[in-house]
Amino acid sequence: MSDTTSYTPPRIWTWNQPNGGRFASINRPVAGPTHSRELPRGKHPLQLYSLATPNGVKVGVMLEELLALGHAGAEYDAWLIRINDGDQFGSGFVDVNPNSKIPALLDCSGPEPVRVFESGAILLYLAEKFGAFVPADSARRAECLSWLFWQMGSAPYLGGGFGHFYAYAPSKIEYAIDRFAMEAKRQLDVLNRRLAESRYIAGDDYTIADIAIWPWYGNLALGQLYDAGEFLQVQEYTHVVRWATEIASRPAVGRGRMVNRVSGPLDQQLHERHDASDFDTRTQDKLQASA
Amino acid sequence: MSDTTSYTPPRIWTWNQPNGGRFASINRPVAGPTHSRELPRGKHPLQLYSLATPNGVKVGVMLEELLALGHAGAEYDAWLIRINDGDQFGSGFVDVNPNSKIPALLDCSGPEPVRVFESGAILLYLAEKFGAFVPADSARRAECLSWLFWQMGSAPYLGGGFGHFYAYAPSKIEYAIDRFAMEAKRQLDVLNRRLAESRYIAGDDYTIADIAIWPWYGNLALGQLYDAGEFLQVQEYTHVVRWATEIASRPAVGRGRMVNRVSGPLDQQLHERHDASDFDTRTQDKLQASA
Repeated sequence: MSDTTSYTPPRIWTWNQPNGGRFASINRPVAGPTHSRELPRGKHPLQLYSLATPNGVKVGVMLEELLALGHAGAEYDAWLIRINDGDQFGSGFVDVNPNSKIPALLDCSGPEPVRVFESGAILLYLAEKFGAFVPADSARRAECLSWLFWQMGSAPYLGGGFGHFYAYAPSKIEYAIDRFAMEAKRQLDVLNRRLAESRYIAGDDYTIADIAIWPWYGNLALGQLYDAGEFLQVQEYTHVVRWATEIASRPAVGRGRMVNRVSGPLDQQLHERHDASDFDTRTQDKLQASA
Repeated sequence: MSDTTSYTPPRIWTWNQPNGGRFASINRPVAGPTHSRELPRGKHPLQLYSLATPNGVKVGVMLEELLALGHAGAEYDAWLIRINDGDQFGSGFVDVNPNSKIPALLDCSGPEPVRVFESGAILLYLAEKFGAFVPADSARRAECLSWLFWQMGSAPYLGGGFGHFYAYAPSKIEYAIDRFAMEAKRQLDVLNRRLAESRYIAGDDYTIADIAIWPWYGNLALGQLYDAGEFLQVQEYTHVVRWATEIASRPAVGRGRMVNRVSGPLDQQLHERHDASDFDTRTQDKLQASA
């Protein structure tokens, strides 16, 4: 195998060099804040601190779906966390998420702010708070939770595994790319078989399982992740493509994926969101700015 | 960097060779069953299909903790799934978990069996079913869920990342070992800072967050995972060690980690569990058998 080397790990690992390719500057072997910085706080009950990565998009979509259903309590301020600039290591952010990852949520609707971190926990917290997008019936709830947790345990192999070694690592390591490409295809096939028999992931209804899975595997199946559509032959997963296309057409998904987005087409970027009208003014402002 | 090669990925990935080192035979790019096989079904309300890996141990511990609290409805049969023999690809298992991973649970207490897969979903399902090990109060529940999901999203970097490249891969790839060792240490530090201020992960009470995190990071901190204690200098994480040691001393944890265990000391192996008394007869039988 072309990667085989004579490398022997030392007895004790030491932090010798930047490691991580494109994201080398934000990978560290220690946790905790690197600098003191308060988080901004807006007027709405919910404060989201995020960036429109696949994990971030989940929460933007969820909040827009809740608002579309008429849940005024889901009004939110979305603040941009630029992870390449190290915003996630500010003391205020670490207080909300000690793991220094986006997204993080602060629910200020009660007497004391409640912190929630990890995208899956945030989705479930919001689903329970508003009684939406998670089934009440025990068996259907179990199915929804199973797939929600499936996404949490699977996507690290797609993102931190396949995506890292295929797209971001400083050199192409055949063994690692091969290992994680195989797993990414297996995961797509798991979903494809499920969606061959079911309109949505957890059954007949659109739930937080879809909201969690779509930004990763839906975008992957639509060829919009890691430029890997041809490599993984994503068009073969026809049921995933059908499902991903349907979900992409939801208006709340269209809005949610713009929240805290800082790349791609200008008219798809809403760096901060503080009001429903921001989606309209954003388009106008951006188009004027780029004119 | 010693791993740098001139490898260029092909346009389309193909499955050319076994990949995965020690677990090569069970890694595939497709999902679904490979053979027809029914799952056994015992007399108890809950049927567990598992193996005592860190993910499997979570559920054994949870069920033993529930029984220790007096929840007779948590009585269970635990059936062994030998993943190196491909038991997880049998049709009956795939029906319970389409992702072909242990652990999987069937709740037969109602009119129709309910399937639950993914260890985190199983823990939450059982916690809600019995009203135990998850806080009822909204803020404390949010903290518990955040850490539960933290484990789900983090452990793939420890298991599929660090553990694979450090302990199981067919060659030692410096870049990958370095990348995932850094992340494993960061994760230990996240927990160490949390446990410096809190007796248990989610606060003053022992919850499913502890039950989920202990088999991975507790065992790691006690030097019982991947033989990596010295490499990662786990003794530095003194609060994790304190917490891991306390949890290891719980009688239910002692029993739960034996369930579906097929390696290690004979008196710690209970291949199947069908009755509380199995823990006693097991010890006797095994010691006789090895005499």
